[in-house]
Amino acid sequence: MKFAQQLVLGAALAAVPGLGLAQEAAAPDADSVAALNTEMVFIFNSLLLLIGGMLVFWMAAGFAMLEAGLVRSKNVAMQLTKNVALFSLASFFYYLIGYGLMYPGDGWMVPGWLGAIGTAVLEAVGITGAEADDVTYASTGSDFFFQLMFCATTASIVSGTVAERVKLGSFLVFIIVLTALIYPIQASWTWGGGWLDEVGFSDFAGSTLVHSAGGWAALTGALIIGPRIGRYRDGRVVPMPGSNLALATLGMFILWLGWFGFNGASQLAMGTIGDVADISRIMANTNAAAAGGAIAALILTTVLFRKPDLTMILNGALAGLVSITAEPLTPSLGLATIIGGIGGIIVVFAVPMLDRLRIDDVVGAIPVHLLCGIWGTLAVVLSNGDTTIGAQLTGIIATGIFVTITSAVVWLILRAVMGLRPDQEAEINGLDMAELGMEAYPDFSKG
Amino acid sequence: MKFAQQLVLGAALAAVPGLGLAQEAAAPDADSVAALNTEMVFIFNSLLLLIGGMLVFWMAAGFAMLEAGLVRSKNVAMQLTKNVALFSLASFFYYLIGYGLMYPGDGWMVPGWLGAIGTAVLEAVGITGAEADDVTYASTGSDFFFQLMFCATTASIVSGTVAERVKLGSFLVFIIVLTALIYPIQASWTWGGGWLDEVGFSDFAGSTLVHSAGGWAALTGALIIGPRIGRYRDGRVVPMPGSNLALATLGMFILWLGWFGFNGASQLAMGTIGDVADISRIMANTNAAAAGGAIAALILTTVLFRKPDLTMILNGALAGLVSITAEPLTPSLGLATIIGGIGGIIVVFAVPMLDRLRIDDVVGAIPVHLLCGIWGTLAVVLSNGDTTIGAQLTGIIATGIFVTITSAVVWLILRAVMGLRPDQEAEINGLDMAELGMEAYPDFSKG
Amino acid sequence: MKFAQQLVLGAALAAVPGLGLAQEAAAPDADSVAALNTEMVFIFNSLLLLIGGMLVFWMAAGFAMLEAGLVRSKNVAMQLTKNVALFSLASFFYYLIGYGLMYPGDGWMVPGWLGAIGTAVLEAVGITGAEADDVTYASTGSDFFFQLMFCATTASIVSGTVAERVKLGSFLVFIIVLTALIYPIQASWTWGGGWLDEVGFSDFAGSTLVHSAGGWAALTGALIIGPRIGRYRDGRVVPMPGSNLALATLGMFILWLGWFGFNGASQLAMGTIGDVADISRIMANTNAAAAGGAIAALILTTVLFRKPDLTMILNGALAGLVSITAEPLTPSLGLATIIGGIGGIIVVFAVPMLDRLRIDDVVGAIPVHLLCGIWGTLAVVLSNGDTTIGAQLTGIIATGIFVTITSAVVWLILRAVMGLRPDQEAEINGLDMAELGMEAYPDFSKG
Repeated sequence: MKFAQQLVLGAALAAVPGLGLAQEAAAPDADSVAALNTEMVFIFNSLLLLIGGMLVFWMAAGFAMLEAGLVRSKNVAMQLTKNVALFSLASFFYYLIGYGLMYPGDGWMVPGWLGAIGTAVLEAVGITGAEADDVTYASTGSDFFFQLMFCATTASIVSGTVAERVKLGSFLVFIIVLTALIYPIQASWTWGGGWLDEVGFSDFAGSTLVHSAGGWAALTGALIIGPRIGRYRDGRVVPMPGSNLALATLGMFILWLGWFGFNGASQLAMGTIGDVADISRIMANTNAAAAGGAIAALILTTVLFRKPDLTMILNGALAGLVSITAEPLTPSLGLATIIGGIGGIIVVFAVPMLDRLRIDDVVGAIPVHLLCGIWGTLAVVLSNGDTTIGAQLTGIIATGIFVTITSAVVWLILRAVMGLRPDQEAEINGLDMAELGMEAYPDFSKG
Repeated sequence: MKFAQQLVLGAALAAVPGLGLAQEAAAPDADSVAALNTEMVFIFNSLLLLIGGMLVFWMAAGFAMLEAGLVRSKNVAMQLTKNVALFSLASFFYYLIGYGLMYPGDGWMVPGWLGAIGTAVLEAVGITGAEADDVTYASTGSDFFFQLMFCATTASIVSGTVAERVKLGSFLVFIIVLTALIYPIQASWTWGGGWLDEVGFSDFAGSTLVHSAGGWAALTGALIIGPRIGRYRDGRVVPMPGSNLALATLGMFILWLGWFGFNGASQLAMGTIGDVADISRIMANTNAAAAGGAIAALILTTVLFRKPDLTMILNGALAGLVSITAEPLTPSLGLATIIGGIGGIIVVFAVPMLDRLRIDDVVGAIPVHLLCGIWGTLAVVLSNGDTTIGAQLTGIIATGIFVTITSAVVWLILRAVMGLRPDQEAEINGLDMAELGMEAYPDFSKG
Repeated sequence: MKFAQQLVLGAALAAVPGLGLAQEAAAPDADSVAALNTEMVFIFNSLLLLIGGMLVFWMAAGFAMLEAGLVRSKNVAMQLTKNVALFSLASFFYYLIGYGLMYPGDGWMVPGWLGAIGTAVLEAVGITGAEADDVTYASTGSDFFFQLMFCATTASIVSGTVAERVKLGSFLVFIIVLTALIYPIQASWTWGGGWLDEVGFSDFAGSTLVHSAGGWAALTGALIIGPRIGRYRDGRVVPMPGSNLALATLGMFILWLGWFGFNGASQLAMGTIGDVADISRIMANTNAAAAGGAIAALILTTVLFRKPDLTMILNGALAGLVSITAEPLTPSLGLATIIGGIGGIIVVFAVPMLDRLRIDDVVGAIPVHLLCGIWGTLAVVLSNGDTTIGAQLTGIIATGIFVTITSAVVWLILRAVMGLRPDQEAEINGLDMAELGMEAYPDFSKG
């Protein structure tokens, strides 16, 4: 591969008008500097999306570890299988259908929805600036890579809530519909230049479009699938502690890291002083909000329960992250900490509240992603003067209604056609042996 | 460290001919724009190799977790030790000998092979563009850093196959020879501008040079070392399930992430619109192939065995990654998915086939890295018109013959001199207690 | 978010004087090229700090995994809680107080120490080059983000040493004082342009300022808190092996990866050929030193104890990393390997030595961070001709005295006011159940 190097400089120079080597010592016209600037901006923007995309990809591992750590050991292999499979299916169906649906104005959908299938055509190999249709943004490949990871994140949110009692096959069919249709359609309303964007709805990196969308799908699933066997008995909640808190903590740290890409790269541009300074603000604020959420959950659980609760602290950090996602740029560090801290508080109160409603959310994804997604979307008005509460509520409600109805339809069809739950014995013995015939930790006896 | 900052701009400007601060308002000649462009391209290329190198470093952790998860708990500490040690030894010996051998044309080898020892001299500290020998590619340090990680990857592949029954010392001596001599010599044939490169053999990021090379070394080891005690009994394969599938899944996700650097940074250049667009294509295709491999293994194991198999799905994703590595740039997203998917199918059929041949490959590295490395190298012709099947077969066979013979010689010498296997009792009780005197999970009783 | 793209090029061009689109084909003056260069350098520098900051953030996860793997299973949830909480508190208090204290010359402290609270004001949103106070370095947000992570690393070092027997609340109060006051004050002496910087003390990325500072705080804590119950009995050391060496190994790999950012981004500049070549040298040297430390520990434990020791090898790699941190730029690859190797040797001898002194350091943080921090700071003179042993000793001793005295005062006040240790029964049963009421691995019976 090293032998490509000799070609590089020549190509680089050729790509900048006015820089051909033939022109010895001639004065460049202004275009040569502008062209170089255009090229550098394009590279920086694409690089931002690629780095961001890799970081958001890494969040898929974070969700897998978080969820594998928070389910009981008899369901760990299944939870891992679901997470690997859902990411892979999201990759495939977002490419095949979703991306085209989400950006209808970009010519991916020719001539209609069905026409969108498989049309995700990236730039030609070795394109030059002169041949590119558009050099003002970033490479199509980097944009596709980045957007794909957001779609997969939405899917990851669902798997935690409905863990330990949903059939693998039915779950994966739901994920296909979610990533091919439901997510892209609602996301296109804002990020695809649709009606919500025109209404003034503001959701920088997706508190609503990704997190509450995933949360609504998860809530709908939890309601239709029902709670785990034995979870609610005689009006009491039976604790079902996660089997591996080290893994869950690792998952939280992975998600925290990945979120720097989730929010930071949503700036979508890094080629100017202003853009890189904005990205820096976003990353600092994202970190502050996560810290605020974790600290709030630490203090609150200590005060309320006399003992700090590690899983609440983990979810508190994630709550802070979701809360700052709708507007990570404009708050001050102090306000970002507070927005995240309120997210942490929401989680500590919402987790037991859901249990009182007998909504069984295994990992706490509904409080974290749905409730804090709503809170974060509303909190935009605290620091972004151009945004109104009305516009934000419009986006929150529209997304909620659309995702809830479409998800419910899919879950109900799946229940009728394939069934949603394994039989009772399989669930009690664990899905690992029943559905996969393997254990995650076969060498260790159960306590 | 912050105090370096005042020096930065001065140095930056001084490094660009025609930009000295003394020249107030003078018109720049074309050289000043070209020089700035050259500098930016050099920085982007070096940054690409550094980011890529870090990602491929991270794959060492991925292999460690994958293998630690797939061996039985009594051999986990040993497998971890081997992985840390092999990476460290690869770092040392590739620097001392390998890098010089691999790029003989770069003047590292003065005057001959032995002269190469220790000559990996990086740029002087604080070099300026004017002093640099060559500003058309990237910094020598970044190139060395990146290439080193590829060498270490080759070594990582071997450790999984021969796990649970090879002596630590003998294994590590093999790794030294592999990383100092075997890998660099065969890699130089293509990437060092050698005869395979001239024949037209094409292997973008190393399906053959890294993955099948590692796979041949692993296969040779498995044949000479023999299967684990009790693995094949009365004509049947005794299942020896991995002790921690959460760890194995984490390892797979780490490898998937690292592969974006493995393939993406093998473009070796990021300083033009064309290069960054190509890197974007590569990353999107790499992701598509991994997804294709995982989905293929998911579907195929469900159809064949009635139950999806998590370890097959993990290996399916890795198979997809290996398969796309020889040509991640030119396929469309759809073709990349198919190339990866075929890789996943190969793994599902090859794993039981190896067992029928009584070749004991603990983690499935031979199907993933060797067979899919061959498949991926052949698949180059599907999308890269300049490449012939003949050239590809030449490279595959030459690498196979060379690595197999040299590896066999080393393994056989080690068997004669040091012995390859611990005594029977040590193997049955586990290498952790026998060779290390420690357990990986001492607090947990075995089931 | 995609709709921001149309604005990008316009903003980019407008930010470069002399590049306005109105000026059709006019010859640019030299300023336009210089301005573009300034902008590119600013972006590269900020990007370096952001990437570096993310990598150092990731080290927080590394410490959490390393420590969770090296404590006994009954204290794992507590160790995880401490690590998440300490990072979150460091984020908050370094923002609130520490950053202003550390860079008093930057105007963060108006008018005095108390005035520093909450004044960490980042750039305005969407700033342009023309509005920025200073475009010669990097964005304030990226600098803050990067520096914050160093402060948090210092805190992470302490938690491992005093694990398994310190009260959560007291520990966290100590962390608040450490990150708000102790670390920033001593770090400002060198990195804030203080007296140690003027004396000629050289500590590139913090062998003394971060690692030995954290080490002194840890040592003081270990002495005041005392050893774990039952650790030293009848003049013998009772082994208390870590519960999960796979997790510990993962933590080591995470730290190794993160260190590329810790050292590499401490170059603080990436906008010239010289800077990116220097960063490349730094990363290659950092890797070489880690490898040297691991190999030294591997060989030495094999020779001394007849069996290699995985935890020593892990700490050997970390020792190599700490040792090269004071000067990762100027050594050759060979010297870097040797400096790291000596670090590995120090660890192998120091761990049992500390036990003979009845200083109970659960994870070996004192040998790794304190002793190798000192060694690395002294080793600067081997390759950096401008640095004297006298200046290095001045820095080492001043930091040691300051951190030891201030830490001791804080630990002693905490002992008097809140108590440092849980009651004996809680410690014996494990802090997880006693202080948190939860277990890290509830599904697995103890061996």
